[in-house]
Amino acid sequence: MFQDQLKDAAARIETRLADALADAADQPVTHAMRYAVSGGKRLRGFLVIESAALYGIAPEQSVHAAAAIEALHAYSLVHDDMPCMDDDDLRRGQPTVHIKWDDATAVLAGDALQTLAFDLLADPSCHPDPAVRVDLVASLARASGIDGMVLGQAQDIAAETAGRPLTLDEITELQANKTGALIRWSAEAGARLAQEDIAPLSAYATALGLAFQIADDILDVEGDAAKTGKRVQKDADAGKATFVSLLGLDGAKARAKALVTEAEDALAPYGARADALREAARFVIAREV
Amino acid sequence: MFQDQLKDAAARIETRLADALADAADQPVTHAMRYAVSGGKRLRGFLVIESAALYGIAPEQSVHAAAAIEALHAYSLVHDDMPCMDDDDLRRGQPTVHIKWDDATAVLAGDALQTLAFDLLADPSCHPDPAVRVDLVASLARASGIDGMVLGQAQDIAAETAGRPLTLDEITELQANKTGALIRWSAEAGARLAQEDIAPLSAYATALGLAFQIADDILDVEGDAAKTGKRVQKDADAGKATFVSLLGLDGAKARAKALVTEAEDALAPYGARADALREAARFVIAREV
Repeated sequence: MFQDQLKDAAARIETRLADALADAADQPVTHAMRYAVSGGKRLRGFLVIESAALYGIAPEQSVHAAAAIEALHAYSLVHDDMPCMDDDDLRRGQPTVHIKWDDATAVLAGDALQTLAFDLLADPSCHPDPAVRVDLVASLARASGIDGMVLGQAQDIAAETAGRPLTLDEITELQANKTGALIRWSAEAGARLAQEDIAPLSAYATALGLAFQIADDILDVEGDAAKTGKRVQKDADAGKATFVSLLGLDGAKARAKALVTEAEDALAPYGARADALREAARFVIAREV
Repeated sequence: MFQDQLKDAAARIETRLADALADAADQPVTHAMRYAVSGGKRLRGFLVIESAALYGIAPEQSVHAAAAIEALHAYSLVHDDMPCMDDDDLRRGQPTVHIKWDDATAVLAGDALQTLAFDLLADPSCHPDPAVRVDLVASLARASGIDGMVLGQAQDIAAETAGRPLTLDEITELQANKTGALIRWSAEAGARLAQEDIAPLSAYATALGLAFQIADDILDVEGDAAKTGKRVQKDADAGKATFVSLLGLDGAKARAKALVTEAEDALAPYGARADALREAARFVIAREV
């Protein structure tokens, strides 16, 4: 059932993004944008749609904000994969944008995908109330800029030249910024669309985001490149501190499990209506990709 | 008087941007962002402040939108200067971001400057009415994304591999996107802040933007690298079609002059209150940098 909901969300988001790019000029940059937003689990967009559903908001309404976070996530991946950043040739089993096109197209496609994210949130289709739309824009700007995702990316680069591995506190803070901030925004989006208190969803997403990153580190050690569609053992090879190197494999698994329980508990105010979000939390540490 | 107004606008914008970055983490990316937004003529921000003044909006109010367009413009320059794009080592007489830091910092600083632009527009300080703020966000997204600036950049890259020089119509359309769209947004911003008809300012800015680009092409031929602080003769050396190569030097100068008159005339509805904007149009074709 959860897998069906995830697929349904992905299909809706795919359609919204295709629609947003339907009239785009016939240029490599727009082809690269379409390519970059296709595929993937769409976990962030799913969190938007399911958190909105808690407040009775239909997927037809929340899909716009869901498409926005997926466009923003796609921009970060396109730029992150570039040779001057993580230098990855493969993403979801396919050549990355700068491999399939070139570096200039990757820069421009990433730039325009960020713009598209804010465009989707600002568009009247996203929500009839401009106050809600501008709140979504402002909160996404905070989550993705120098107080959020980009700060985490900068901390990640700084860690490589620090001359010592990061501590558990440092890596927790880094990941809370680098991947946690967008996951948090996604889960909070439902409350923002409903103009309700974001606190319960925020607590859920904070635990979920950290569990997600610990699971990523576990996958980097135990994962199968054929399934994940990307290089594995990358961090271990680079001698980087990870949750696995700091907690051990068993310790990391136990911590991820505890965080999933914490995430599930945070959803208590919503009762059974939040079962899809609870399942998403369990999925995050059980996934193979 | 016009030079004083331009300096006053620049100082206000500088303060607003410094304020926005005051609490930013101590990381190379935030240092690079401060570096990238310092200096320059601030013509776009000036257009925001002066177009707002036409509607009695004080610079204390319009400076936020002015800072936003300068942050967005700075992002485009940082990415444009990168080796995989225009590969420029010098900007305003100073080393470009990827030279002073590295390519990864240039990618991230540009990304975060784009985010900052939307953040500044979405912040309540920009305008008390959320409908106005979200209109500014939506219009800037359109002006800077794949229907605006990024489309122009893509058309510029495509022109280099087209195997033939562009026609006058093609280069006019390319420039209307690449540099025209942001100049247009800047001049229209005053009417948007006042929730009035953007048509007169739009006509002014369309003529101004084209005059600006023709003047740029003239400067590329006649300019002094010591004054402009960047490479000259770049386009001629690259064998690219420019307004000068298509119209001749005298023809280009005549066309720029006619466009300035057109820009001035478009401001008729505002009478003498628009004199600063008229002077800005004359400045654009008389500037040496």
